Amino acid sequence: MITKGYALKQADGPLEPYSFERHDPGPDDVLVELLYCGICHTDLVVGHNEMGQSNYPLVPGHEMVGRVAAMGDRVQGFSEGEWVAIGCIVDSCRACSPCGEGDEQHCVEGFAMSFASKDRQGRPTFGGYSTHYTIDHRYLLKLPEGLDPASAAPLLCAGITVYTPLKRHGAGKDKKVGILGLGGLGHIAVKMASAMGAHTVMLTSSPDKAEDAAKLGADEAVITSDSDALAAHAGSFDFIINTVSGVHDINTYIPLLKTKGCMALVGAPTQPLPVMMPLLLMADRSLSGSLIGGVADTQEMLEFCAEHKIGADIEMISIEDVNEAWERIERNDVKYRFVIDLASLHGSEAA
Amino acid sequence: MITKGYALKQADGPLEPYSFERHDPGPDDVLVELLYCGICHTDLVVGHNEMGQSNYPLVPGHEMVGRVAAMGDRVQGFSEGEWVAIGCIVDSCRACSPCGEGDEQHCVEGFAMSFASKDRQGRPTFGGYSTHYTIDHRYLLKLPEGLDPASAAPLLCAGITVYTPLKRHGAGKDKKVGILGLGGLGHIAVKMASAMGAHTVMLTSSPDKAEDAAKLGADEAVITSDSDALAAHAGSFDFIINTVSGVHDINTYIPLLKTKGCMALVGAPTQPLPVMMPLLLMADRSLSGSLIGGVADTQEMLEFCAEHKIGADIEMISIEDVNEAWERIERNDVKYRFVIDLASLHGSEAA
Repeated sequence: MITKGYALKQADGPLEPYSFERHDPGPDDVLVELLYCGICHTDLVVGHNEMGQSNYPLVPGHEMVGRVAAMGDRVQGFSEGEWVAIGCIVDSCRACSPCGEGDEQHCVEGFAMSFASKDRQGRPTFGGYSTHYTIDHRYLLKLPEGLDPASAAPLLCAGITVYTPLKRHGAGKDKKVGILGLGGLGHIAVKMASAMGAHTVMLTSSPDKAEDAAKLGADEAVITSDSDALAAHAGSFDFIINTVSGVHDINTYIPLLKTKGCMALVGAPTQPLPVMMPLLLMADRSLSGSLIGGVADTQEMLEFCAEHKIGADIEMISIEDVNEAWERIERNDVKYRFVIDLASLHGSEAA
Repeated sequence: MITKGYALKQADGPLEPYSFERHDPGPDDVLVELLYCGICHTDLVVGHNEMGQSNYPLVPGHEMVGRVAAMGDRVQGFSEGEWVAIGCIVDSCRACSPCGEGDEQHCVEGFAMSFASKDRQGRPTFGGYSTHYTIDHRYLLKLPEGLDPASAAPLLCAGITVYTPLKRHGAGKDKKVGILGLGGLGHIAVKMASAMGAHTVMLTSSPDKAEDAAKLGADEAVITSDSDALAAHAGSFDFIINTVSGVHDINTYIPLLKTKGCMALVGAPTQPLPVMMPLLLMADRSLSGSLIGGVADTQEMLEFCAEHKIGADIEMISIEDVNEAWERIERNDVKYRFVIDLASLHGSEAA
């Protein structure tokens, strides 16, 4: 079926209207009418081919919310018109050890990403800056009642990215959790850590962001340029989520961790970060990477967010404004996530 | 009591005979007649004041084995003439949370190191390049039967340093464990990981060391300059102990870890190591520091070594040859640990 979308035709090109063929739903598939799609920084990184593996035309978008429009014969557990969500993962081998453990993001054959990737039949995947998506129901998520569909969209990547390490490292009562960086990921991490009952501390270079963090639920904020403030918190954090994707001096923050404390990295600076290993060694501290999360965990995260009324703080845009939104993201000018209202695409005359 | 030892009088000075006062055993103390002392690279680092905190005269040595010579009134559980051992930790607050958990090495007030430190009364600690040591019995270790006293000495630092992370990360059956670097720490790690039942792989730049590792019990060796060999092992290690204390490209080895695998650092390069964070992030890998181990764990480690007949491979020297041994250590010319036969000091006419 012909689907309307917005694509880059080349790495440095603008996003422009682009119509393409979605495959018809097979017996295990669900056709989803997309209604909202978050704009994640990864859309820009991959869209501009910063990883060097992109093919064009490229339809970005991997934080999708919509409604079931049609279903294959073998699909159970979904019904037409139901609110659903699609995240980063749309297929995997379902046979390897990580898949068996619900870690499809670590599928040994590689998972199929919802955009700029290939599905397991070798077909290119076009992302959520589009009107419809055909997906195997085993990777389709239910959007729980109580979540606002638009502000839920960024949960599909930003949300699960921070939920996974918060859960893995036991964020909760009697734990002091730091969130380094207040952006798309950081602002959801503050909300989640706070909802989990952790003493939640915003670590930011900006006094303005410190104020914002308090509104989001942070118990405290530490201005990271204030060395006295940092010293006062030295050795006190059970866990820190580091959401900073640019180059930064990680050695400033490692000493904040207590003995056996862990810093989880969810941003991925493309330049190496120099690490003073004695800072890890002297207190049995660790640095841990964390990549999104599996399908079942993503569903669990959505339910957690529904229970605690957590959504992203969003700025809604029309599809026509998507290029401007990308430019503003490059300037860090968004609080905290753009979401495309895809009604603007459904109703457009895009080619 | 007057004790004979060898000390540096200044950071760049040689080790030379030095007599000093040990405090008489208090009611909780044990006087140990020292018979063997291992030479650890940390002796050189601290002796030459590379950390900038050393005071002189400085008597090195923190891998001590000897016999009980006298005991205070309140000491129980030891008997005169019994073989005992002293490691890095000779006092701590015994009140903080880490002390309560048996992690005296992370005592919030700082533990008293057995040399180049101060005890909790503020007295300087002189190390094991000496004839006697006075120690609170709560930090004194029993040397289990079946351990050769001389080759057991290096277990007190090198041994516990690698035992702690091996145990923490579950080295054992069905685990593939890599040991990066074959020196004082690495050669004991190979023996221990193998005794724990792990598939033990030596990671070394040197074909000669690969052969040596096989004799020590390694199941395999990978020559780290062979990129094809490294590629063949990519993503396969549950755990790697990184014993390298010099600057090295850690990004060469991180990809060897499987999903959620961990590299524990036990060497402490004093220069920062650049880390490509996406290598951690894409597979939920972690880097973890580990500092020696607590008193109870050290006792457990000695019992494990006795059960499995594990000691260090040592070259025994007389105290007169200690400066030459230090020079050889600087050149990596030792397989794999020097141990001072302190009979040579007891019988000397050292000042």
